[in-house]
Parts: sequence; structure tokens; C-alpha cells
Amino acid sequence: MTRDIPDIAVSRLPLYLRALGHLESNGQQITSSKELAAILGSSAAQIRKDLSHFGEFGKQGTGYHVAHLNRQLRRILHADLVWDVVLVGAGHLGNALLHNQGMARRGYRIVAAFDHDPEKVGTRIGNVIIQNNQRMRDEIQQRGIRLAIIAVPPPSARRVAHQLVEAGVKAILNYSPIALSVPDDVMVQYTDPVTHLQHMTYYLQDR
Amino acid sequence: MTRDIPDIAVSRLPLYLRALGHLESNGQQITSSKELAAILGSSAAQIRKDLSHFGEFGKQGTGYHVAHLNRQLRRILHADLVWDVVLVGAGHLGNALLHNQGMARRGYRIVAAFDHDPEKVGTRIGNVIIQNNQRMRDEIQQRGIRLAIIAVPPPSARRVAHQLVEAGVKAILNYSPIALSVPDDVMVQYTDPVTHLQHMTYYLQDR
Repeated sequence: MTRDIPDIAVSRLPLYLRALGHLESNGQQITSSKELAAILGSSAAQIRKDLSHFGEFGKQGTGYHVAHLNRQLRRILHADLVWDVVLVGAGHLGNALLHNQGMARRGYRIVAAFDHDPEKVGTRIGNVIIQNNQRMRDEIQQRGIRLAIIAVPPPSARRVAHQLVEAGVKAILNYSPIALSVPDDVMVQYTDPVTHLQHMTYYLQDR
Repeated sequence: MTRDIPDIAVSRLPLYLRALGHLESNGQQITSSKELAAILGSSAAQIRKDLSHFGEFGKQGTGYHVAHLNRQLRRILHADLVWDVVLVGAGHLGNALLHNQGMARRGYRIVAAFDHDPEKVGTRIGNVIIQNNQRMRDEIQQRGIRLAIIAVPPPSARRVAHQLVEAGVKAILNYSPIALSVPDDVMVQYTDPVTHLQHMTYYLQDR
């Protein structure tokens, strides 16, 4: 992995991309670090510093071209490519992910999904037919898939992560609130609504 | 809102809480900023600095008591309380959230859910009966609910956010990839799998 640029700066590029997408869909052509900061609740200095790691995107006093910066950030994040993703866990959450239109539209398409429940195996959800977990390794290797989403119940998350890594997956988005141990060349990101809710209730006083 | 402490420091407390929860469930009693940094991919200095905003939690050379720090951070985030949450949107994603056991267990319980689809209104999902969107305002005001989750399709997100704010909601977790405009005393957090996937594909080379 490239570690020359701080990961914290990389982690904010998708947020800048989201803000740029909103501006672009509103027909806005030029923006500034100040405006982006206002949208994101960040600071203009932070945004300029983050972007400076990746190149020169704006001219002093004229701001950023929304479409250009959007395109450049997508290129930097490799989000201008189409990525195949495997999903493990076809329960309520897996079902929601398989119906998430926005993922495929933005280049991250779930091309295979697995579950250990015989009642689910063979059924179709969205565009995908659920396969038995035992098919995971072959499917990942044959397709050369490097991105996976874990949407299994917490007790199974570590075993599934191990299987994914063994099969060659290099990046895991983990929906289970379980810490995963993976080799250094594998990335894990966690997503959990409770983390966001806790952040917000800090600002809410008890009554 | 309290803005004396940087929001970026607040935003990391839930992550520290998650790491502490893992250590506690493994039976570990003492930890260090170095160990937490290794779990979270952060730096020990960052963790010590973040925590210093909120008090003195460890003694030089002896580290942190896991259970104590866990309890203190939960208290700071008001995550030691039980919070009522409303959900708007009972589609695939709303269904998954209503089945998410971890939320209620950690103090964030969805007590009311709304949808505009007559086929869904009146049905039970998990412990909640789906109500018509028109009931939203009364229900929020009668129960004094301040936390909401938006899980509606993108075209409806802004209208729903407006209704929630009008009804008195002060914090919104938004699953739709749509920027919401809210008054200064209302917080919005965004959650989107694509943001995480983009962060990770930065590190994956095209082949």
C-alpha cells in the first residue's frame, strides 16, 4: 500500500467527492475550499492541505472547477473504474445492499453473494443468485475479485474474513461490529450506524 | 451545540469506544494509546491528544483501564443513556435497520417507523408497526424524539429532512447520498458504503 500520503487525507477525498457531486448536480461550475468546508463542516485550510497531497487543482483566487476536481478525485481514488464486489451474508442487510442502486451506478457492483442458509442459496436477489459459502473461494479467484462486503451476524464475521483473505480479497467493508485481524496488505473499513448516532448524541443534552 | 472541543475529536470517540469494546470482550483490563492506535490504524499521539480534551483517563506509564475508559467515553457521548430514534423509509434498508439488534442493545432503539407506501403502513417489522408519513410530526412531538434515520430513496430525502426538523428532530443519520440543508442547531451525519469503498480502492491498483 502507498503510505506516503496520510491515510486520513485519503479518507476525506470521498467526502469531497460527495460534496462535488452535489454541487455538480445543482449545475454549479466553480467552488472554493471555503464553500466545500461549509458543506462538509470542515475547514478551508484542511481541504486545501488534503488536496495539496494529490496535486494542484485550483488557482489562487479562482477556486476549483467542480467537474474537473470531481473527475480528478475519482481518478485518484480509482473510482472512475468499475469494481467487482463480493457480498457475504444475504440476510436483511445483505438484501438491502443487493438492492442499493447507488453502488453499481457509482462503479461498485456486487457480482456475487454468498450465504450458508440452504433456504437462501439458489434464490435471486436483485441481479445476483445467492451461492453457498463453499463457492466463495473459487468464485473470488476465478473472477479475480479484491473487494468484499461482510454482512453476516457478528459470530461469523471473523471466520468469513479469514476465508475472504485466503481467497485473495484485499479490501473488506465490514458491517459487523467485530474487529477483524487481517494481514498488512489487506484493508478493513467498518461501518456501523451506532458510531454516527453516538457522535451526534454527544451534542444532545439529557432531559 | 458545544463547539469548544473540535468536532473531529468528538467524531473519533465512538471509534475508541468500539476498540475498547473489543478489548473488553476479550477480557483485557489495561490498554495503551499505542495499542488503541494499532487497532484503529491511528497514532498514539492522536489518541492521547483527542482524549485530553475530555479529561485525564490514564496515568503515565500504566496505560488506561479498559472498562473505566469505556464507561467514561460512553458517558461523554451520552451513549450510556437509552435514546429513542425514528426511522423514515421502510424499504429494504429500513427493514435491515429495524432488524439490527446491535442498535437497541447499545442504547439506540427505533421506536417508530414511517413510510408513504400504503402496502407497508400497518405492517409490523421487528418490534415496530409502520405508520403513515403523515403521523410523523405528532409521533415525534408526543414522544419528544430528537434522533432520526432517513432511509428513503434520494428524491424524497430533502422533503423528509424538512419534515423531521419541523417536528423537532435535532440529529439525523442520512443513508441517502443527498446533501441536506438543515438549521444550525440540527446535526446531520451521512453514511454510504461507496465512501468506504472509494477510500479502499485508492490503495488497489488497476490491473
